[in-house]
Amino acid sequence: MSGQKTKAVYLKEYPAGMPADGDFVVKEMDVPSPGAGEMLCRTVWMSVDPYMRGRMRPDVKSYIPPFSLDAPLEGGAVSEVIESNIDGYATGDYVVDFTGGWKEYYLSKGERSQKVDPNLAPLSAYLGVLGMPGLTAWAGVTQILEPKEGETLFVSGAAGAVGSLVCQLGKIKGCRVIGSAGSKEKCDWLEKEAGVDVALNYKDYKNAGELTKALAAAAPKGVNCYFENVGGMHLEAALNCSALGGRMALCGMIAVYNNKEPEPGPSNLINMVGRGVMARGFIVSEYMDKAMEFAMEVAPLLAQGKIKFQESVYEGLDKAPEAFIGLFKGENMGKAVIRVGPDRL
Amino acid sequence: MSGQKTKAVYLKEYPAGMPADGDFVVKEMDVPSPGAGEMLCRTVWMSVDPYMRGRMRPDVKSYIPPFSLDAPLEGGAVSEVIESNIDGYATGDYVVDFTGGWKEYYLSKGERSQKVDPNLAPLSAYLGVLGMPGLTAWAGVTQILEPKEGETLFVSGAAGAVGSLVCQLGKIKGCRVIGSAGSKEKCDWLEKEAGVDVALNYKDYKNAGELTKALAAAAPKGVNCYFENVGGMHLEAALNCSALGGRMALCGMIAVYNNKEPEPGPSNLINMVGRGVMARGFIVSEYMDKAMEFAMEVAPLLAQGKIKFQESVYEGLDKAPEAFIGLFKGENMGKAVIRVGPDRL
Repeated sequence: MSGQKTKAVYLKEYPAGMPADGDFVVKEMDVPSPGAGEMLCRTVWMSVDPYMRGRMRPDVKSYIPPFSLDAPLEGGAVSEVIESNIDGYATGDYVVDFTGGWKEYYLSKGERSQKVDPNLAPLSAYLGVLGMPGLTAWAGVTQILEPKEGETLFVSGAAGAVGSLVCQLGKIKGCRVIGSAGSKEKCDWLEKEAGVDVALNYKDYKNAGELTKALAAAAPKGVNCYFENVGGMHLEAALNCSALGGRMALCGMIAVYNNKEPEPGPSNLINMVGRGVMARGFIVSEYMDKAMEFAMEVAPLLAQGKIKFQESVYEGLDKAPEAFIGLFKGENMGKAVIRVGPDRL
Repeated sequence: MSGQKTKAVYLKEYPAGMPADGDFVVKEMDVPSPGAGEMLCRTVWMSVDPYMRGRMRPDVKSYIPPFSLDAPLEGGAVSEVIESNIDGYATGDYVVDFTGGWKEYYLSKGERSQKVDPNLAPLSAYLGVLGMPGLTAWAGVTQILEPKEGETLFVSGAAGAVGSLVCQLGKIKGCRVIGSAGSKEKCDWLEKEAGVDVALNYKDYKNAGELTKALAAAAPKGVNCYFENVGGMHLEAALNCSALGGRMALCGMIAVYNNKEPEPGPSNLINMVGRGVMARGFIVSEYMDKAMEFAMEVAPLLAQGKIKFQESVYEGLDKAPEAFIGLFKGENMGKAVIRVGPDRL
């Protein structure tokens, strides 16, 4: 591969507000050669995920550091091993890792790579329902919310990569499931394909008060469990409708990620006191040690057709910024993935 | 006692905003006679507590129902048994219960009464450090925050009945403790008597940004545990300074109890996600089954002088509304108690 040119996406500057195409730049470079203890990987599929917006703020304290402007962006990818100097990885293997996104070729030490079998599931599924978003959904449900049969689960961002699995795990655990999403098409999919009991198109509701009424009607016994992807009026409505002893898994608040000025939080946090509500923020890296348990539970459900998922596929590395920006415009159905290259060269 | 007149305090109307004297009315009535399975109790000490403000909203869903306008107010009291038709309770016994407050005499079925020994502690202590506020503090610390040695604990409302015990339990568990209170006198007591490492007079800080700077300086490793009594800019500052994996016990938000219009919450709830923060609202009734464990831990510490407490004493039932209103004006040092009658007639 020596001397061959390849591409990677850099952040030109940290976005102010909603990210735009101009915040990104595609740079050309030589395909690198693997040294001792390294392997050269070719990205086949890459992932864009809302959490990446948080890494585009240079001043935020979090479990993951901000992106640098001086290196390609990083993100989840499924890649083919092209040339390996690492025992256990051979040419033609497929790996999932958290650095291969936003580029066509890259070197890896294999430390955070996991081999995946292309015969068990479509390769892109390892970025979605069987990947990081899947583990996120499963961890929020099983490690934080712990819904009991007969309880009511409310999910915001319900048609997304994470939310759609949360909904279906909730149904499998015997919950009444209410999902919120941003289009009639998404709500139809939730009710007809994912089996949720009530899908609310949040664009039908002008404010937290209206959303509260709709949620209260859909959850007559109150909301026992809330899986938070959105924030803003969704959180306020969930707190208004929380049952006594409610639990909330705070996975993300996509509604506020692109605010230039801080947006005030809900005015009803006091409900947490009177109703004994527990809220737990989390990011998936806390639960990496549970990845095997997750796979053992979810992979068979997927194989049996008991869990459904959708993908929005973008073609080519150059489309990665567009796919990423689409996350915040509600343009994707299910998991957004970018096909960076063919399965085999 | 038959035919003798006595007094009780009623709510005249539900307060709008800050409660005022005119929201209360003292009514006269006959001292009742106990029937079968009842006892007549005479209130010696009564308690006023911030949570009562929540019961003065007719539309709030909570573990405890709103107060009625057609019955005397209720609250914690230490009372003397005057005449008993209940096995196990005899004339001259002292009991603590949750209904005897705001009145001079009342009938009890003894269902939620606990006998207390006047020789073990001053009777009023059973309404404070050894009573409901004490159990609240202990439960928040031991059942929710679970602080580890070397961690940093931040307490708002630190000089109050609950907060002052939280601070001292934190010190006993080996934490660095930072307390916030509303006067120099309270801060002096916290640093000199209660042993907190840094006391912040929140009135020195105009907004959440200024309080954040002061808290960050006092907590260079971040806040691992936050005990919330106040809300508003205190919660925002605590979220700004939260360490990864922080825990928050939400006991109350006294800053917002008297708002006529809902006050927006903090704009930085997203910090809970990136830092993996858990927040748990609670009220003390959830932890009644731990009352014995609490007493076994705290009573010896009190007897050994390892825990200090303060009281603001008001004389006479008529002063109860004033004492209650004083809670929201920051006028009390430590626990506010009202002496309704002498220990013995």
